[in-house]
This record gives sequence, structure tokens and C-alpha cells, in this order.
Amino acid sequence: MDKAATQSGSRISVQDLRAFCLEAMRRSGLNEADAGLTADVLVTTDMMGTFTHGTRQLRGLLKNVRSGRINPRAREEIVGDGLAWVMVEAHDAMPPAVSCRSMELAIQKAKVCGLGYVGVKGSSHFGAAGYYANLAAKQDLIGLSMCNVDICMTVPGARAKVLGTNPIAYAVPAGDERPVCLDIATSTVAATKVFAASARGESIPDNWLVDDEGIPTTDPRLYPEQGALLPMAGHKGYGLAVLVEILSGVLTGAAIASQIQSWVLDVPDRTNQGHAFLAIDIAQMMPLVDFKARMDGLIREIKSAPKTSDAERIYLPGEMEWERHDAAVTEDILLPSDVVANLRGLAEDVGMDASSLFPAEG
Amino acid sequence: MDKAATQSGSRISVQDLRAFCLEAMRRSGLNEADAGLTADVLVTTDMMGTFTHGTRQLRGLLKNVRSGRINPRAREEIVGDGLAWVMVEAHDAMPPAVSCRSMELAIQKAKVCGLGYVGVKGSSHFGAAGYYANLAAKQDLIGLSMCNVDICMTVPGARAKVLGTNPIAYAVPAGDERPVCLDIATSTVAATKVFAASARGESIPDNWLVDDEGIPTTDPRLYPEQGALLPMAGHKGYGLAVLVEILSGVLTGAAIASQIQSWVLDVPDRTNQGHAFLAIDIAQMMPLVDFKARMDGLIREIKSAPKTSDAERIYLPGEMEWERHDAAVTEDILLPSDVVANLRGLAEDVGMDASSLFPAEG
Repeated sequence: MDKAATQSGSRISVQDLRAFCLEAMRRSGLNEADAGLTADVLVTTDMMGTFTHGTRQLRGLLKNVRSGRINPRAREEIVGDGLAWVMVEAHDAMPPAVSCRSMELAIQKAKVCGLGYVGVKGSSHFGAAGYYANLAAKQDLIGLSMCNVDICMTVPGARAKVLGTNPIAYAVPAGDERPVCLDIATSTVAATKVFAASARGESIPDNWLVDDEGIPTTDPRLYPEQGALLPMAGHKGYGLAVLVEILSGVLTGAAIASQIQSWVLDVPDRTNQGHAFLAIDIAQMMPLVDFKARMDGLIREIKSAPKTSDAERIYLPGEMEWERHDAAVTEDILLPSDVVANLRGLAEDVGMDASSLFPAEG
Repeated sequence: MDKAATQSGSRISVQDLRAFCLEAMRRSGLNEADAGLTADVLVTTDMMGTFTHGTRQLRGLLKNVRSGRINPRAREEIVGDGLAWVMVEAHDAMPPAVSCRSMELAIQKAKVCGLGYVGVKGSSHFGAAGYYANLAAKQDLIGLSMCNVDICMTVPGARAKVLGTNPIAYAVPAGDERPVCLDIATSTVAATKVFAASARGESIPDNWLVDDEGIPTTDPRLYPEQGALLPMAGHKGYGLAVLVEILSGVLTGAAIASQIQSWVLDVPDRTNQGHAFLAIDIAQMMPLVDFKARMDGLIREIKSAPKTSDAERIYLPGEMEWERHDAAVTEDILLPSDVVANLRGLAEDVGMDASSLFPAEG
């Protein structure tokens, strides 16, 4: 995901940003519970610096509410379960809220069996996969989350959009060190990076995108009308995207590949994305204090490796994000200007006055 | 993994290759059960064309038996379990045999709970991770397998060996189509590809290897004395390698990162690698016939995508391997000459006459 670090933008406190999101959701007919969970997901994602997937997404989600593709009065339903698993039909309820509750179900199953899997169908865009993995890590479990996405990525040998960017995320608690967490698209980069390069008039590396002939291109302006994203590491990213498609889509009963309708396009059809959440209860398998000491040992060994001449530090997966998160608590969040523009548009959409929160720049 | 397709080498039937491996293992003190499972793992891996991880590995494994690092009289032990999981101490028993039985335990747990996880410590080199994932797929479960490996790969910011190539594999059954399966190192390429380029006197792409300063190099001759492999897709492969390290090493009680002793070096210490096996029982979650039809649909959709001008077909993960496997049944296996040289050396090690099986070339 794009961790934009632009210096223009607006500084806002976590509390004010959260209150703004809650009010926009109330005005859109969401109940307090769904709005609260969704605000937690989006604001925390901004705090970690993943601005492409934070509050910037709320305008689009609430457009889907107004168009009826997300139903603010719906509640997901358990449609199947066993000792270690649950299958959920989201009924187009607010996806981040559905996803938080689904990961909680996976955690409950894991606390009984050691492992828990929850599959969700009938859902839509859930934001950053990493948030849900971290819900498990916060409770001292290992968490994994993934989802299938409308097609935008090619595969080796093809010259068209075949699969989505199908993200995969995990989070693992440590002791004195911060949880290790990763949240990646299985494409070389997320589409947002292509759009950003296009907006800046820059060319892109030749492993991000192919044109309509399937030939790598450095011109970001082709996409999304033409071309397709490339999987990370060729056949390896392709293979992992297929695994995510199977665990999120095939096994859950959700739409698969080309059946998934984009949540950003103005179409009437259900998005019908699928999600997969997995939790592992460490404490059943090893004393938690031992596991955490072993995690700290691994983390410290990696961080203390000899560095290249241009590296000040070696970062663990998630470490940069935790530092941004901590800074956001003490120093507020510096929202990039594209996020601010988006939130101003959202305010207009729902009839809020955002001029004091986001004063005009310049 | 390196799918060598050299045309020099020896053609041998599956039966003869299996019998040769069994006899070599008998002469090394392995019991029939362990020898049979190990022969299945290694010969099937050759049948799928993954010659780097097939019978070529047997000489090294039996050297470990002679040196005492693998104990042919040991049997793994269950040291902990819960509803959906088992922890195993391998006691340095033959790793492919331990791994087959451990995946079977994961399958048994999954048949009760829906999911099963088995963690193994005190083990050594288990060959190709993909074989164990396919054990689950053969029984209509989804299988995943992974293991941690002695350090040979750098991470972003480091200029040294920090993690292993930590492979991850999965396999998923389909209906009329073949199972989808993937078996990848989390490095850009496995070390064997670097060795092969070095032997051919060729340079390598600049995303395979760094030198001792952490600078990408195209000279394969540096490795393994100097330098380190690069993770696939930069921080993404790094993050996935850490996940494999956690699920195979941290959670199981096995050695972690630099504590793992190479199984190929002539050192007395336990290797103490860890493995992780995960199984998901599809039939509990969705009628198997529906799941398989959905898999066939996904497979056919991918295969029928518009192709690039230079692509004859679009392959699913594992499809090339299944075609090689089928050809091996009808046409025998064409072992590359490096594998033949290795098997000749093995025959010498254990006092077998291999001259009729592998007549001198030329």
C-alpha cells in the first residue's frame, strides 16, 4: 500500500478525525455500533500512515450506502459453523464492521480449538486487511486476514485483467517489542501507486503494469482503462493471489474473480466480495511468556544484523507503521492533501461543515 | 525451485528409481515405513520435475544418517495437542517421513474441527514443501506446508544472511481439473539457481543476490561464501519469510534463524528446523461437489483469458508440474545429469552397483 508522506495537507487530532467520521456515518443512517467499528478501522489505518486505505475510503463507502449497495440496516448472519470455523453471509452490511465482528468470531473459535477460520461472503470493500489481523494480535493471538478483489491484475501469459490485487495480512504479538505485522497486495504495487504516479506525471518502473498486449509499460496513464497490474515476483505473486481467491472467495461462496463487481464503479450489482479471517491461539500451544521472548529474540536478531552503508536501521514488518501510530497519538495526524480533499468532498456529500476542521490551504 | 529441463541425463522408470532409493535407505539402517514414505516424497518430486528437491537430496540425507545428525531408529513424539492442533518433537527422525505423518495428523484434526495445525521441532531438511500440501489435497482437503531454513537471505537494510529461504506451499483439490498447487521459496530464487548459473559460468539478474556490502550483484560465484540471497519482491518476501519463521520456528519451539544449523555442512550440531502443516476440511464448510465446481470455474476462467502473443497457454499454479508427473508415468523420468551424478555418488556411499541403472554417458 502507498504510505504517502507528503508534507502538504492538514494536521488533525485522532479524536477530531474520529468524531468527523462518526458524524458522517450517523448522517448516512449507520447505527452507532457499525459506525464506531468503522471509524476505528479507518482512523487507525491513517494513524499507521496507510493513508490510501484509511478515512480516504469513507466517502466511497458512504456513496455505496446512498446507492443501496451497502445496507446500513443490514446485519451479517452466521450461515454455517463447526468446532473451529464459521461461515458468514454479510448481507451487504458495512464491511469494516462485519470484518471486525468476523475476526472476533475467529478468535473465539481459536480460544476453544487452537485455530479459528471465518469465511465471509456478500461483503464489499473492508479497507486495510492488516487492521483485522492486528485485532487478533492485540488479544495475544496470531491473526491473518485476506480478501478477494475485483479483477485488475494480469497473470503470466495473459494480457488482461484476470485476478484482483488480493491482499494478505498477518499480525503476531511480541513481548517488549511491537507486534510484527504485514499487509500486502499480491500485485507488485497497489493501484493507488499507479494513480499517484499518473497524477504527478511520472513514469513508473516496468514491473508494475502491462499494456493491453501484456507488454510491461512505464506509462501509468494507461491504467485502469487499459492494461493490468503485474503480480509481485511473477508466478509467485500469481500463486499467492490464487490462494487468497480460494480462501476468501471459492470456499466462502462469495463471487469469484470476474464475478466480483467493483465497489468504486457506479453499478447497481452487489459487490459480493469474500473475506477470510484466521486466528491461532498461541497460549494453548506454548506458554505466552516463552512465545513472546522468542519473538523478541527473532526481532532483535534481525534488527542487529550488519547494515548496508545507506541504511540507518533495519525495520521489522509493521515497525514503521507502529512508529507513525505512536506519533499520531502525541503529534496528531498529518493527513495528505488528497485525503483532505476527499474528506471535504464527503462533508459536502452529507451536509456537514468541514471548514473549521480542514481550513483552506495556502 | 529450479525446474531443470536439461536434455542430457538418464531415463529411468518410476519403479526403478523408487527401488533404488529404498535399497539405499535399507542399507543405511532406515526401517521400511520411513524408507517408503521418503521414497514417495523424493520420487514424486522428481516426477513433477522439481529435480533440485527430489532424489538428488537422498545422498545428503543419508550422509546425515551416517554422521548421526539424522537418527534412523528415532520416531517423532507428540509433545502437546488440543482440539485442532498437535505439537511434535521429531527427535531427528527421517524428516520426509516425519513430515508425511505430521500432515496426516493435521488432516485428522481438520476432519474433526474443520482446521488442523501441526507444528514440528527438532527436524531437518524435509525436501519439497509442496509434497505435504498435496497429501491433503489428495484427500479433498486444502493443505499448506512451510518450514524455516538456515540463514542465507538478506532483508531490506541488511548486508548479511538474516533469514532462510523459508518456503511456503499450498495445494487445493479441483473437480475435472487438476489440483492447484504452489511451492515457492520466499527468496527471489532458491540457492540452487545461483549454483547452476555459477556452474554454467553465467551472470545472474540483479535481484537474486547481494554481495557482502549488501549491493546487488550479477556474479553468482560469490555465493554462498559471500553475500546473501534477496527476498522476492523486497519487503513483501521479507515479511512472508518472517511469517514462515514464526509458524514453523517460533511457535513450534524449533531453532530460529541463526540458531538453525545447515543440514548440508559437516557439523555435529542438531539441525533443529521447524515445520508447519495446516489442513482445512472443505466438506464441512461447503458440499465438496460445489467447491470443486467452483474451483473448476476459477481455473477455466484464468486459462481462457486473452493471451500475450508469445504465450501458447496460461498455466495454473502446479499445472506444469502435473503434466510432467503424468508424463513420468508413461514415459519414465529423464533425470538431469547432476541428479544422476548425485545418485551414482550415493550408490558408491552405500556400496550399491548403479552401473546398470545409470550407465556411463557418452
